[in-house]
Amino acid sequence: MPSPIRAAIVGATGYTSLELLRWLLRHPQVKVTAISSRKPEQPISTIFPEMLGRIDLPIEPFDPKSIAQKADMAFLCVPHATAMAYAPELLSAGLRVIDLSADYRLKDALLYEKWYKQPHTDKTNLSHAVYGLPDLFAAQIASATLIANPGCYTTCAILPLAPLVKAGLIDTRDIIVNAASGISGAGRTPTPQHHFPERNEAFEAYAIGTHRHAPEIAEGIKLGSGHEVNITFVPHLVPMDRGILSTIYTRPMGRQDVDVARQVWRTAYGSSPFIRIRTAEVPSTKYVINTNYLDMAVYQYEDRWIIISALDNMVKGAAGQAIENLNIAAGLPQDMGLR
Amino acid sequence: MPSPIRAAIVGATGYTSLELLRWLLRHPQVKVTAISSRKPEQPISTIFPEMLGRIDLPIEPFDPKSIAQKADMAFLCVPHATAMAYAPELLSAGLRVIDLSADYRLKDALLYEKWYKQPHTDKTNLSHAVYGLPDLFAAQIASATLIANPGCYTTCAILPLAPLVKAGLIDTRDIIVNAASGISGAGRTPTPQHHFPERNEAFEAYAIGTHRHAPEIAEGIKLGSGHEVNITFVPHLVPMDRGILSTIYTRPMGRQDVDVARQVWRTAYGSSPFIRIRTAEVPSTKYVINTNYLDMAVYQYEDRWIIISALDNMVKGAAGQAIENLNIAAGLPQDMGLR
Amino acid sequence: MPSPIRAAIVGATGYTSLELLRWLLRHPQVKVTAISSRKPEQPISTIFPEMLGRIDLPIEPFDPKSIAQKADMAFLCVPHATAMAYAPELLSAGLRVIDLSADYRLKDALLYEKWYKQPHTDKTNLSHAVYGLPDLFAAQIASATLIANPGCYTTCAILPLAPLVKAGLIDTRDIIVNAASGISGAGRTPTPQHHFPERNEAFEAYAIGTHRHAPEIAEGIKLGSGHEVNITFVPHLVPMDRGILSTIYTRPMGRQDVDVARQVWRTAYGSSPFIRIRTAEVPSTKYVINTNYLDMAVYQYEDRWIIISALDNMVKGAAGQAIENLNIAAGLPQDMGLR
Amino acid sequence: MPSPIRAAIVGATGYTSLELLRWLLRHPQVKVTAISSRKPEQPISTIFPEMLGRIDLPIEPFDPKSIAQKADMAFLCVPHATAMAYAPELLSAGLRVIDLSADYRLKDALLYEKWYKQPHTDKTNLSHAVYGLPDLFAAQIASATLIANPGCYTTCAILPLAPLVKAGLIDTRDIIVNAASGISGAGRTPTPQHHFPERNEAFEAYAIGTHRHAPEIAEGIKLGSGHEVNITFVPHLVPMDRGILSTIYTRPMGRQDVDVARQVWRTAYGSSPFIRIRTAEVPSTKYVINTNYLDMAVYQYEDRWIIISALDNMVKGAAGQAIENLNIAAGLPQDMGLR
Repeated sequence: MPSPIRAAIVGATGYTSLELLRWLLRHPQVKVTAISSRKPEQPISTIFPEMLGRIDLPIEPFDPKSIAQKADMAFLCVPHATAMAYAPELLSAGLRVIDLSADYRLKDALLYEKWYKQPHTDKTNLSHAVYGLPDLFAAQIASATLIANPGCYTTCAILPLAPLVKAGLIDTRDIIVNAASGISGAGRTPTPQHHFPERNEAFEAYAIGTHRHAPEIAEGIKLGSGHEVNITFVPHLVPMDRGILSTIYTRPMGRQDVDVARQVWRTAYGSSPFIRIRTAEVPSTKYVINTNYLDMAVYQYEDRWIIISALDNMVKGAAGQAIENLNIAAGLPQDMGLR
Repeated sequence: MPSPIRAAIVGATGYTSLELLRWLLRHPQVKVTAISSRKPEQPISTIFPEMLGRIDLPIEPFDPKSIAQKADMAFLCVPHATAMAYAPELLSAGLRVIDLSADYRLKDALLYEKWYKQPHTDKTNLSHAVYGLPDLFAAQIASATLIANPGCYTTCAILPLAPLVKAGLIDTRDIIVNAASGISGAGRTPTPQHHFPERNEAFEAYAIGTHRHAPEIAEGIKLGSGHEVNITFVPHLVPMDRGILSTIYTRPMGRQDVDVARQVWRTAYGSSPFIRIRTAEVPSTKYVINTNYLDMAVYQYEDRWIIISALDNMVKGAAGQAIENLNIAAGLPQDMGLR
Repeated sequence: MPSPIRAAIVGATGYTSLELLRWLLRHPQVKVTAISSRKPEQPISTIFPEMLGRIDLPIEPFDPKSIAQKADMAFLCVPHATAMAYAPELLSAGLRVIDLSADYRLKDALLYEKWYKQPHTDKTNLSHAVYGLPDLFAAQIASATLIANPGCYTTCAILPLAPLVKAGLIDTRDIIVNAASGISGAGRTPTPQHHFPERNEAFEAYAIGTHRHAPEIAEGIKLGSGHEVNITFVPHLVPMDRGILSTIYTRPMGRQDVDVARQVWRTAYGSSPFIRIRTAEVPSTKYVINTNYLDMAVYQYEDRWIIISALDNMVKGAAGQAIENLNIAAGLPQDMGLR
Repeated sequence: MPSPIRAAIVGATGYTSLELLRWLLRHPQVKVTAISSRKPEQPISTIFPEMLGRIDLPIEPFDPKSIAQKADMAFLCVPHATAMAYAPELLSAGLRVIDLSADYRLKDALLYEKWYKQPHTDKTNLSHAVYGLPDLFAAQIASATLIANPGCYTTCAILPLAPLVKAGLIDTRDIIVNAASGISGAGRTPTPQHHFPERNEAFEAYAIGTHRHAPEIAEGIKLGSGHEVNITFVPHLVPMDRGILSTIYTRPMGRQDVDVARQVWRTAYGSSPFIRIRTAEVPSTKYVINTNYLDMAVYQYEDRWIIISALDNMVKGAAGQAIENLNIAAGLPQDMGLR
């Protein structure tokens, strides 16, 4: 058996880090060897009581050289802007980096600056960063040193749409992504909006026209299909912990049977271990939570095709996909440790 | 003070009946004088433990003549098909009837038969039944003897859309109603789908292209605007008790500012006591649950207008609107007992 | 019809204020005439979007003289310590005060200082404050100028226990109150503990041996029964908005049938409009939420009597009971506006 | 690497079966080779849509000989009474059996008959069945052919209590187990009680004095400690999917420091891979759900010791513990596949 990949987690106090730990602790070929954070040094179980007795690494201050001695790969779980400050140092120290923030997702720095309201400070690495959607870009991921792990809503929208756009099956100017997410997607920092009695027994739309995943969806589809698309994206919050469901309204080009769409998906994702095309049940977040699966289905509704896709925002939408990226980058099977 | 309106509830074991009781028991000018059901005779609190000590009427078998002696108005809370069997008898006995089922909502009996898979057996009364949306049809409601109380999803879609269609502001062939409902909307009969551990922590779409509120929305908009519309309607289930949120995707005709839409709403609903046009917060089910309010707002998103509307499916979407109808039919203020 | 009682709400940004508004706006003999807060002047609907279109009073800075010109009674909805700073000024200005904080609940200032870790700064008014449990102390409430509205857990424990202790039916040294509350009881300020993804799908005990309602329960029972009791009190948090259920473990004195306990309750609470003694169903928070009812039941379990009591912490446990107190103090029927 | 253990699941339509599948599919030394049920033959993913693409075994009718050819061990996931009809046949066919029903838990057949209201029909195998609490009875489990997997509430109560009783630290006549469970514990069959809108936003006690886990707790403690105990057990339902929290009220014998209890636990469970003794945070179901951990803590409260224990009813309380039993019985590490 080969020696395991040594992984570091940088930024260890959010839900993404916790989810990475959950999965990595049972990964047969990865060992978490370093955890760093700006928080005072303390056992990780002080921050995540779930981890008591499961891992006893101390949290250490961020020190790229020290991390490089202990690890081969680093997961960046820090907020955007911080990520592009840390990544160059980690790369220089010889680590391969999987960034779970948004800093290296948009290839166009001007687009980044428009949506994130600040200059991009690491255009050098941005230029070679690979967008880490393993079901579309496995070849580039295999040799990448910097992988931009996609957003949760974006993964759930790009994967069903890109093959249909590439095949010219749907009108690229008339795509609505109506999405709904569990609350873990909003992060671990308490806010009035996500205080339990405000969020419980409530359903609402937010960030209409202003959500940063909108340009990322469009760019990801372009990357995966070669075509510009026009996306209307409206996210909603569901009173539950995990899961995203996208209800996507599209217009087929011409009078094609909807089964053509399913066939395109089967061809595109035949070797994808975690994409399931459903024909019996309508996808539900229930069927994918706590797994790395992404379920998709498509329905004819008069002159529209309605696509439903579902994933767990913390797994396929974040930590699970990051581990797929690690697996591919390390030459391991894409699904290792993720079943 | 005038003598109170005497109200009967026919079909007393579902959530709609319970909600009617909650509101009617505090209505200053209505007294519940009869409750009937196919269930064995028993105190209503056996069926609804919430009602212990609040009302002591026994549940009696359905007997139109007996009801007519005790009551002026009857709320029909029985399933569709049963309603059109009971309504003629109640009307013949001299009662005015507010039917909360679907039997008298679609004026076109053929449309009813297509969607409800059975013949309409009371076309006589169907012809004069009034669609009970008080914010649009108060004048007809005032003199109606049979009022078809609208559906929950339909109320939430028709009220924001009808004035915009009537004013010619939006493209009638490109309207998507993406709606999400709490689970009380599915009724009180236990099913595998709505078993707590199946429904909790789950979000999903259902009845894509087959939900019976789709034709009702289209017909209601036509009734309220004079125009045929083409509606794509996809409902979803949210793990919460109450509340519907509609996210409605429309295309404005020409390059009009979205404030024109708000102005049309203000004109249409200036005297509607329960319609609130929001400009500060995005509507949320949280702001309307346990109230009779319907909140609506509209946003420009590139070349679309996105409308968000919210109501409580059990109140404005059922029992509360039924009481508005009673109030209007009885010559009482529309909002009496509903604040 | 007499002119309505004019009520002021002091401290208008927490859940208690919101709940008071919900009920007072439909009270036939109370008019809310003033709202004050330390927050900047703004419409109340900015703080509570639920209130849009329902009340248009502006929030004003705290000014006792101004409040006294506008109102007869003031509800104090400020945190403890602030309440005992404000109450003397309001009383001096001629208002009667119903304090929803803990400042005037414990008659023993030393006990207050032990549990609240600060000196009591208004012992003068503490000496005549009346503990506002209307089902036990209506006579004193009727003439009180300062009413200490009881806590939520405490109401749920004192009301079932006091009559049994008074009747000498249970061992006063062996009483365990195991209670569980919805999260609105924790207030409206966001905290890491009550962030949605932390609280949802979680059940836990807290404040074991340190919860401030423990001494209040003991003192309330003594006040209502004349006997000292020894209470073990452990509260828990339930992932829901509202409701408290107490599971109370007691030992009967001698071999008495449990029906004796029910009979004592019936005698004590025969004229209490909101206390229900259940014999059919086990009390559930579901049956009391959004109402002012308190349900209680008692069961024999080998040599113990197990009492289950339930109420809505925001209604009978806070705002609803405060309105009962107002009604009694104002000479109105105890249940007015609370059905 | 040795050839994997071949496992059969008998009774494949409940939550326990689903949970077994979730864990077994990632177990490195177990292969699920047969699934049987009374349901018509169909893919397992028809019953559990979560399983689409994860396992493609068909569900077959129950046939002990056929199962014995395919498997070494059988998990019995059928209701009680059915289990004692199936187990003898499976044992005769040469399989080792882990029964997740209640049929072989109570060693006293008369006690079984009293609580389960029917005769025990397999006293022969009952006499040698081993109670499958691996943290207490690993030696017997290692050589058992029939293992009675404990109940969920019972595991959560016996494990903290048995060592304290054995050490003579607590009064055996004064133990109250106040427990609360997520709704998956109630099984997968829809009922009015567990219909989403009835169960959501509700907290209640049930089966006061009649729950069948009460005698099992007492018997399990006796088995683990050698002492008879008197248990008052009151279960409650929490609106969440998973997790049990027990709040246990005990009386220490004499004036011992509560740390003595912790020390006894550490000695008893030093080699138990899934028992965590918490001293920092109060145990919460949140920290254990979706894991096989059982957390316990103990607090002094005047003259009582209050124990809090928590586990996931589907994992440590059912499927996870069953896999621990399989591991031990098969000579594998107790924690294999359960991290």
